[in-house]
Parts: sequence; C-alpha cells; structure tokens
Amino acid sequence: MRAEIIAVGTELLLGDTVNTNASWLSKQLAALGVDVYYHTVVGDNVARLSSLLGEALARSDVLLLTGGLGPTPDDLTVSTLAQYFGETMVSDPDSEASIRAFFRERQMTMPLSNLKQALRPSQAEALPNPMGTAPGLYWDVSARVGKSTHVFCFPGVPRELYALWPQAEDRLLAIRRKAGEPTDRLFSTHLRFFGLGESRLAEILSDLMEMESPTVAPYCGQAEVKIRLAVKAESEQAAERQLAPVREEILARCGAYYFGDDTTTLEQVVGDLLRQQAKTVAVAESCTGGLVSSRLTDVAGSSAYVCQNLVVYSNQAKVQHLGVDPRVLEAEGAVSEAVAVQMAQGVCRWSGAQVGLSLTGIAGPGGGSPEKPVGLVYVGLAFSEVLPDEAVPFRTQVHRVQVNSHYARSDIKYWFSQYALQYLRQALLAPPQAACNNPCA
Amino acid sequence: MRAEIIAVGTELLLGDTVNTNASWLSKQLAALGVDVYYHTVVGDNVARLSSLLGEALARSDVLLLTGGLGPTPDDLTVSTLAQYFGETMVSDPDSEASIRAFFRERQMTMPLSNLKQALRPSQAEALPNPMGTAPGLYWDVSARVGKSTHVFCFPGVPRELYALWPQAEDRLLAIRRKAGEPTDRLFSTHLRFFGLGESRLAEILSDLMEMESPTVAPYCGQAEVKIRLAVKAESEQAAERQLAPVREEILARCGAYYFGDDTTTLEQVVGDLLRQQAKTVAVAESCTGGLVSSRLTDVAGSSAYVCQNLVVYSNQAKVQHLGVDPRVLEAEGAVSEAVAVQMAQGVCRWSGAQVGLSLTGIAGPGGGSPEKPVGLVYVGLAFSEVLPDEAVPFRTQVHRVQVNSHYARSDIKYWFSQYALQYLRQALLAPPQAACNNPCA
Repeated sequence: MRAEIIAVGTELLLGDTVNTNASWLSKQLAALGVDVYYHTVVGDNVARLSSLLGEALARSDVLLLTGGLGPTPDDLTVSTLAQYFGETMVSDPDSEASIRAFFRERQMTMPLSNLKQALRPSQAEALPNPMGTAPGLYWDVSARVGKSTHVFCFPGVPRELYALWPQAEDRLLAIRRKAGEPTDRLFSTHLRFFGLGESRLAEILSDLMEMESPTVAPYCGQAEVKIRLAVKAESEQAAERQLAPVREEILARCGAYYFGDDTTTLEQVVGDLLRQQAKTVAVAESCTGGLVSSRLTDVAGSSAYVCQNLVVYSNQAKVQHLGVDPRVLEAEGAVSEAVAVQMAQGVCRWSGAQVGLSLTGIAGPGGGSPEKPVGLVYVGLAFSEVLPDEAVPFRTQVHRVQVNSHYARSDIKYWFSQYALQYLRQALLAPPQAACNNPCA
Repeated sequence: MRAEIIAVGTELLLGDTVNTNASWLSKQLAALGVDVYYHTVVGDNVARLSSLLGEALARSDVLLLTGGLGPTPDDLTVSTLAQYFGETMVSDPDSEASIRAFFRERQMTMPLSNLKQALRPSQAEALPNPMGTAPGLYWDVSARVGKSTHVFCFPGVPRELYALWPQAEDRLLAIRRKAGEPTDRLFSTHLRFFGLGESRLAEILSDLMEMESPTVAPYCGQAEVKIRLAVKAESEQAAERQLAPVREEILARCGAYYFGDDTTTLEQVVGDLLRQQAKTVAVAESCTGGLVSSRLTDVAGSSAYVCQNLVVYSNQAKVQHLGVDPRVLEAEGAVSEAVAVQMAQGVCRWSGAQVGLSLTGIAGPGGGSPEKPVGLVYVGLAFSEVLPDEAVPFRTQVHRVQVNSHYARSDIKYWFSQYALQYLRQALLAPPQAACNNPCA
C-alpha cells in the first residue's frame, strides 16, 4: 500500500504555516507499516488541485488530504474531489446536526456558511469531528479508478486532525486486512550520540547501514547525531527481538558517545546519574551565561541535585565568589585551563556540592583572537566527595573544545552546554581516579 | 515566474523531520514576488526523484531542491539531476579546497566520503557554503528544457540553507530582470507584542486588518503576539512611505505592549535600556533555573551590564546568599511576594548591581497546590542607585502572574522569563518614584 499526503492551502505556499500535519501523518502511517512516497502542498486552486489528484491517483493507493474543509469560499477540497469524479454533493444529516449542536452548545449564532461543511460526495462517508465543525471524509474510489484506491480528507487544524485520526486508522487496517496485506507495523528507535560527527558515525557503521532489515540510518540533529533503527514486525516483542542485537552491535562500536534513546536528553541522563550516585552539582558559568543551569533544571525534580549555581560573567565575579587567583587571570586570561579548574573547585567550595562544573570560553561574535578564537571553551570539573576544605585537593579535569566559530552566538552557547553535560556525564560514569589536572583534548 | 520547492529525504516521509525549509524558502520567494505553486517531498530514491523532476520541470520555471547533498550513499540529489539531464559529474576544485579546509581548520581527519560533496554536473555552478561541507548548486537548464528554467540545490541543514540563500536571491533577481518581469518586492515587518492576547489585539486593530494595502495581520508567536505589516513596492523607501503611517496608528493604540520589530528580542531591548542608562542588572532565579540569565547573555556585548547572576534553587541558598529571612520563608513559602522582594534586594546587595531581578514560582509538573498552582510566579524588582547599604531602602516592585498550568515545564519557564524581562523593561522605561512595595497584579 502506497500512501501520499496532500496538504491544501495557500498559507503553506506563502510560508506562513509550516506543514507539521504531513510529518505527523507520516509518523502514524509509518507505525502502521504503510509506505509514504510523496508529500505535496498545493494552493486553494481547483485546477491545480485537480491536476495533482490525477498524478497522485496514478501513483498511490491511499490519498490523505489535509486542509480546505473550512466554511469560506477558498475551502474547496471536498468540492474539487466531487467534481474530479463527477459525483454530486449531498448534505450529510449527521454532520449538519453536529455543526448546529457545536454552535448551540457555545451559545453562538451559526453563520449560514458553516452548513457548507456538512456537504459530502454522495458516495463518500463523513467522519465525525469531535473538536470542530469540519467533518473528515473517507471515500473508497476503487471502482472509479480501476484499482484499490482510497481517499481521506482531514481538517487542517492539527488538533482536529489528531482527533479524527483513529477513525482513519481503523479503516486503513480494514483495507489492508481485506487485501491480504501484512498487518506488520514499523517499530523504530532513535539512538542519540554526542561527540562525533555524522560522517564518522556512518563510517563506523557502514556495513550495518547496508542491511535491509532492520534499517540503520544516521541523522544530524541539533548539536548531536541520531541513529534511527527501524524494523517491520507483527508486535513490539517481535520487533525488539530483531532490533536488540543490532543495537548491541552499534553500542559496542560507539557506545562511548551514546547518551540515550528518542526523547531522552543529556540533562536527563546527567540528572539520573547524579540521583543514583546521591551527588549534588553546582555550575559556574561564564560564556554560557546560565544555559547549563537552565538545562539542568529543565528536568522535573532536578531540585534533588541542583541547589545553587553561579553566573560569573566578569573577572571580578570570578575572583570574588569563586576564589580564582587574580594573578592567574592576568597571566593566562579568563579563557584558560587554569581558570576553568579554579572555577570548578571554587563553585564546589561556594556551594558545598560534590561536583563542580565550570565553563569559560568565547561565545562570540566579538572577543576572539588568533590564539583564543570564537568557539573556544574550557570545561572544568571538580569532584569533592569529602566535605569541602581548602586543604583537600579536588580531583579535577579540564577539557578544551573548539566549536565552529561561524555559528550564531546562541548556537555556540548550546554546543558549549552539550559538551559540558557530556563531559559531566562521562566523568560521572568513570570519575578520575586520583587528584590530578588531566587535560583531555 | 513559477517556483516549486522539492525536499529530498526519506526522514521527511517518515515524519522524523518537519519540512521547515519549504516554508522558509516560500517566505523568501514571496518577498521577491515569486509565486510558489507546489511543495513536494520525495524520498532518497533515484527513480521517484527523476519522475518528480519530469513533472516539476513541465509545470514550473524555477526548481528549488533541499537536502540530499550529504556525503553518504543515500545523498543522491546532485547525481540524480546530472543523470536526468545526461550530464557528466566533475569535481569542483574550489569546493574540494573548501571541504579540505573545513576539516583542517577543525584539526579533524577528513573522511574520504566527504570528497563526494565536491562533485557537480559539469555545466552547473557550485555555490560556496560558509557553514558546512555541502556546496549549493545553481544550474541554468533552459537549453535542455526548451524554456527558461533554473534549478537550485541547497543542503537540508537549515542554517546552511539560510547562509547560502543570498547567492540564490542574486541569481533569481538577475533572471527576473533579464525576463523583463516586475521587480516589485514584498516588504514586510513584524511588530512584536507581549502582555496581551491575539484576539484582544485583533479587536483593537479590526478596522486596520480590513485594509487591502498595506495588509495588517496578527500571528501568535511563542509567548508573544506579532502583527505582520506588508506591502508590495519598488523599493524599501517606497514601502516605508506606505507602512509608516499604519505603524504609527498601531503603536498609538497598543504601544505599551510593543517591544520591537522582527528579530528584536525582549532581552535585546532590555539590554539597550540598561546600556543607555548605564546600569547593571543581577538576576536571582529560582523556578527558571538560569533561563533569564541565559537569555540576557544571548545578547552580544551583554557583559557591559551583566556581571554575575545567581540560581538559588533551594531555600537554604536563598537564605545563605540573598539574606532571605527564614521566618518569612517559613510563614509565606518560597513562592510569595515577600520572598520575591527579598530576593531582588538580596541580589542587588550580593552583586552591587543597580537593578535586581528575581523570580520565584512553580514550573511544574509537580509542586503545585490549590493556593499556589503550577504556572504561578512572582517577579521581584529592586532598584538601588546609591551604593548598596543595608540601611538604604530599595525601591521595589512585585508582579504576580499565573500562566497556563497545562503547558510543559520548559514552556512555563519560558513564559516566566518573558514576563520577567517585560516587567524589567517597563520598570526601566518608568522606574517607580518612591521607596515602596507596590504589587501590581
């Protein structure tokens, strides 16, 4: 079964609205094991929509149209479909009753134009819309096209589309069953990696990427890379049996850079580790200005391991609150390994936390130099598992990172925060074994 | 001139990625006065892309393709184009040099697969990519198609597309000029408002929204409302003459909620005010966990007015660093007017800044109660224009805000930060005249 998604609406062609419906429907169809070969957007125009219907009916078995079901004259999806197949339009009594009820319940006067929304091609079926006045539509046009062909129409308002979807899903499964097609569904997971690029990952996994099933494909995310693992199977258990060994093989090759699945974020992973190890963390941020702190506290329940953090933007603040040595600041500059270490130690002392994390770098666009360009950051880590005491040497780490200096300031800040969370994660997984300054490039 | 946007990528058909590039390109083309009649998405598949190219070349004069320019085998946009037109591929020396330099500058080993990105059809022109390794492509295929027809290819990574766009824009304008087409462009501005809803704004401006030209339309943004003002004109000056009086009328009606145009953010506006008034600000954040601090420092040059900020997540940190009275914490709770005021005063003292900003609230999803539900926040402001001294009463303000408790935690944090920056902005525009506690609902 080949499906195709057609969005109708001039606002999409003007760029005023992003076609999120197409990706949402695609996800639902992928989960049903239905292949989607095309998305198309066309304006509120009878001739162009008709011409597109011709092309789509020739190459696809299921057409899913969104938009153009409203009460105004430029909403012409249903009438164009009827005209295309030479079918008369009738008013659906149930739809009309629902529309009248919708306004009555809200104590509003119904504009007469809304009655247009009750019209459907006489042979099509209206799908009740629990969220609005535009019913959806299902139409089996197999007899007209000469092959098994099915058309669905949905309103363009996302929440109405989502609410109508289960009715379409039932019909799609019935069509597949009737056609004796496999009722396999697609199960997929995204493994998320940080610290190596997409092409490097593709090299490491090149043989796996050639497999037919499960499929393994890399994607570039925002300051991360994802590996999509997907397989068609009868059940989640059957899928898991096929995915597990591939997943294991991937993690055996590049597990050091893997941090979680699907919606799992680095800040969640770090939070889980801190919670498991019953540690608290304190952050001293210069260039990121509070972003790491904000990300850590995006996690519900983060107050269990975050009590207080500092943003020390000026040199004076670094000296005053963190005890950074002014002579070191003078000699090495604020963006330096030595200052990163002193900041990490200082924020441990200041907060009493077991783990201190520091960032000092250049987020740009100004402030760079040939020796210290925009995009350079030092991430410091200090571990103090005894009570903080000036005499106790902290176990420390420093990481020096250079990110693309051409990125926007806010993107550079985000990359810095990714590195900081990744180093913190790695250190929590395998804390350094002795008191040392161990710069890892 | 009829344009068509084709996105290439199976990840789009699977619903893993939303096709924001199509809407972004549509906006740019609308601004150039170029009509867009279709958006299409097709997978990483030579046969289907070739077939789509045939349809698109028959109905459109300009094809803009995004995606499929990466180094991996499933990136096949350029090779499919070359094959479609029976053109040989050559390695572009400038592209190859750029790709090698990209890796050299980052001290990374170049995977050999990246050299594939230097290939182009021999008659096409490579467009240098300042942001990544995939060059764009411009190809005048008029002689092959038999009518004026032009093809552009862009990388699928949005920031690389945006960076390449000006080169395409120049070529499109030259094509239009050569064809004697009108060079009217659409000029538009978005006025940004915070603190009133879209329907209220639409009520206030209902008569203006009925005008044919310039057009006035409200849009809902992320924790803000925008008014789009647009007009077609020969030049920016001509557009400005028509837009200026409408803009003036809008600001006369609801200027109190207006904070800036287009890409201007609340944090920039606040930064400009602080700079003009030669003031520094310090922030003490509880529920927002560093987000306000991070937003303030998203502005380049913010070190002129931000020196140090505090995240005080725990009650103990509020007492220890800000001098919040433990008895008040006990009696009123951390989320209270009194604590917000003490935090704002405390962060002024702690930092020596002239302005103290504080937030204490409930970001959810847990922690709410009938009296203090999720989405409740108190924003405190303290002004100290003399040297901080325990004896000097600060001029203070508190604002109590309730945002939608059903929003996600990170959205609630963002709404809180918008309110905090808006109150700071309003206070800087008209600071309170006397030492007082003046809660404004």
